[in-house]
Amino acid sequence: MDSVTNLEQRSPTTPASSGAGLGYGIIDQPMRQVEARLRQELQSRYEQLAPILRHGALLGGKRMRPALVLLAAEAVGEAGEAHVTIATVLEMVHTATLVHDDVLDSAQQRRHVPTVNAKWDEQTSILLGDYLFAQSFYLSATLDDTRACRWIGEAARRVCEGELRQVHSRDVLDLDEAAYLSIVQGKTAELCSVACRLGAAYAGADEVTVERLSNYGDALGIAFQIADDFLDLWGDSDQTGKTLGTDLWQGKMTLPLIRLLQTSDAAQRETILQILSGPAADRLPAITPLLAASDARDYTRRRAQEFVDTALAAISSLPDSPAQAMLQKLARFAIDRRF
Amino acid sequence: MDSVTNLEQRSPTTPASSGAGLGYGIIDQPMRQVEARLRQELQSRYEQLAPILRHGALLGGKRMRPALVLLAAEAVGEAGEAHVTIATVLEMVHTATLVHDDVLDSAQQRRHVPTVNAKWDEQTSILLGDYLFAQSFYLSATLDDTRACRWIGEAARRVCEGELRQVHSRDVLDLDEAAYLSIVQGKTAELCSVACRLGAAYAGADEVTVERLSNYGDALGIAFQIADDFLDLWGDSDQTGKTLGTDLWQGKMTLPLIRLLQTSDAAQRETILQILSGPAADRLPAITPLLAASDARDYTRRRAQEFVDTALAAISSLPDSPAQAMLQKLARFAIDRRF
Repeated sequence: MDSVTNLEQRSPTTPASSGAGLGYGIIDQPMRQVEARLRQELQSRYEQLAPILRHGALLGGKRMRPALVLLAAEAVGEAGEAHVTIATVLEMVHTATLVHDDVLDSAQQRRHVPTVNAKWDEQTSILLGDYLFAQSFYLSATLDDTRACRWIGEAARRVCEGELRQVHSRDVLDLDEAAYLSIVQGKTAELCSVACRLGAAYAGADEVTVERLSNYGDALGIAFQIADDFLDLWGDSDQTGKTLGTDLWQGKMTLPLIRLLQTSDAAQRETILQILSGPAADRLPAITPLLAASDARDYTRRRAQEFVDTALAAISSLPDSPAQAMLQKLARFAIDRRF
Repeated sequence: MDSVTNLEQRSPTTPASSGAGLGYGIIDQPMRQVEARLRQELQSRYEQLAPILRHGALLGGKRMRPALVLLAAEAVGEAGEAHVTIATVLEMVHTATLVHDDVLDSAQQRRHVPTVNAKWDEQTSILLGDYLFAQSFYLSATLDDTRACRWIGEAARRVCEGELRQVHSRDVLDLDEAAYLSIVQGKTAELCSVACRLGAAYAGADEVTVERLSNYGDALGIAFQIADDFLDLWGDSDQTGKTLGTDLWQGKMTLPLIRLLQTSDAAQRETILQILSGPAADRLPAITPLLAASDARDYTRRRAQEFVDTALAAISSLPDSPAQAMLQKLARFAIDRRF
C-alpha cells in the first residue's frame, strides 16, 4: 500500500474534473460519454442553480462505479447505450452520497476541491444531494424496464442503512469486526456491487455470471474501504487530499483500531478507550505509538488483501479479455494506491 | 380562511399518526392500506434503526398526496393495488422532503411531534431523508412499467429545484409574484400534480383526462401553499402547530409580503425593507400593523381562491361521482382551514 500504483495516476493536485483520471484504457471512449452525459444531466434552466450543479459534477473522484458498469459489461459482452445511462446514474447517486457526507462530516475540501457546504452552505448541500438522487432515479427510469430502478433503489437504500448504522455506531468503542464489515458492505460495497451486477445483466449475462460480477464488486468495495481506513492513518495527506486521522477525530471505528483493541490486554484497552473518548485533537498523536507497537497495520493490510483475493477469485472463471484484465488490475489498485 | 373547515378536523393536539385524519370518506379503506404499507416499508432488520424509521412514519400530516392518488383514480375508474403502491411512494417522498426541510429550518417540532433533528441529530435527519427517497424509488420500481419511476423521479427533481431556488432567494426582497409562484409550483404543487396524474393514468384514463387531473393537483398545491403563507401570519399557532411568523424569521418572501411591497410607495417600501433586513425577532411585530393597513390579507385570500377556482374548473367536466365531489371538497379545504 506504500508502493506506487500500477494504474496511471492523476496528479494529486489536479481536481477530479478530468473524469477518467485512472486511465481506464479500453473503456476510455464510453467513459467520455459518461462524462458528457453527467454534464448534460447537471444542467439547469435556472441560472442561479447552474454553478451549483456544475460544481456537483466536479466532486466525484476516480469514477470507479461507472468504470465497473462498463468493464463488467465488456467482460461478458458489450457495453452499449444502456450502460452509459446506468454508469451516469450510479455516479450521480455516488456524488449525492458524497455531498451529504460532507455535511455529516462538516468537511471543507474533497479531493482538493471546496465542498458544497464550504462554497455555499449546508442547505444547498442537502438540496443538491436530493436533486442528484431524484435526477438519477429519473434517468434510470428512461431505460426500457424497471430492473435498474429496482436494483439501484435497493442499493441506495442499503447505502443509507450502512451510513445510518455508522453514525449511530460513532463512539461505540466495542464495535467488532463483523459489525464493521457489515456497515462497510452497505456504505461502500453496495454501489460497487450493483454497478457490476447491472453491467453484466444489461449485457445479457446469465444469472451465475451476474452473481459472480456482483460478488467481485462487493469484495472490491470492502477492500477499497479498508484501504481508505489505512490511508487515514498511514497515508500522505497531500496525496489523499484528506487530513490524517479524520476518522479518529470523528469517532469512527476503523479496522486498525478494532484490531488494536482486540489484541490489547485489559490495561492497554483501558488506555486506548480513554484516548478515543478524550479530546479529538489529541487522539492521533496518542494512538500512533500504540498502533506502531501492535500488528494493526499488517493485519489491516492482510485483511484488505484477502478481499482483493476474493474479488479476483470471483472473476477468475470469466474468459480472458482486456476487460477482465482491467477488472483484475482495478482490484489490485483498490489497495495498492496512495490516494 | 378564518372559518371552521368543512372537513372533519383532527384535533390539533393529536399527532398525525392516525393517518386518514381528514376523514377521506369513500377512500378510507385504501387509505388504511396505504398506512399499513407505509409502516411495512419503514421497518428495518437493524434494531438501532427501527425507532428512527418508525418516527419517520409519524411525521406526515394530512396524507393529502396519497388521498389525491386514490381520489383521482376513483374519479375516472377504480383505485387498485398499483394506486396503493404509488400513494405510499408519494407519501414517503413527501416525508423525505419534510425531514430535510426540518434540517434546513432547524425546526424542533412538526405538527406537535418532535422533528428527527430534535429527537436525534442532523446527521440522522439527512440520512433518514435519503433512506426514504431510496426506498420510495425502489418501491415505485416494483410496478410493471417505468412510468411511475419516471414521473416521480422528475417530480422529485422539480421539488428540489423549487427548494433550491427558494433557499437562494432568501432575503431577496424584490422577489416578484411570478418568481414566487414558479418556486411554489415546484416546491409544493409538483407532488400534488404528479399524484393526480399517476392516479388517473394508472386507472386507465385518456390523456386529456390525465392532464385535467394533473392541472387540478397543480392549482390545488399552489392554493395550499398560499394558505400556508396566510396561516403563518394570521393563523393560530395552537392549531397549525407552527410558530407564527416563521417565514418572516427565515427571510422567506411570501405572497402577503410581496403584495405589501408591491402596493407601497417608495418611503414605505424603504421602511419595510429595513424591517425585513433587520433582526429576525423584530420583524413580525413591526410588519403586522403595515400589513393590517394594506390589502395584503384580502389579496392573498383572493389569489388563493383563484387557484381553488382553477382547480375546480379543471375537474368540472368529470362525471359526477363521490370521488369527484371529494376532490371539490378538498380544493375548498385547501384554503378553508385552520391547520
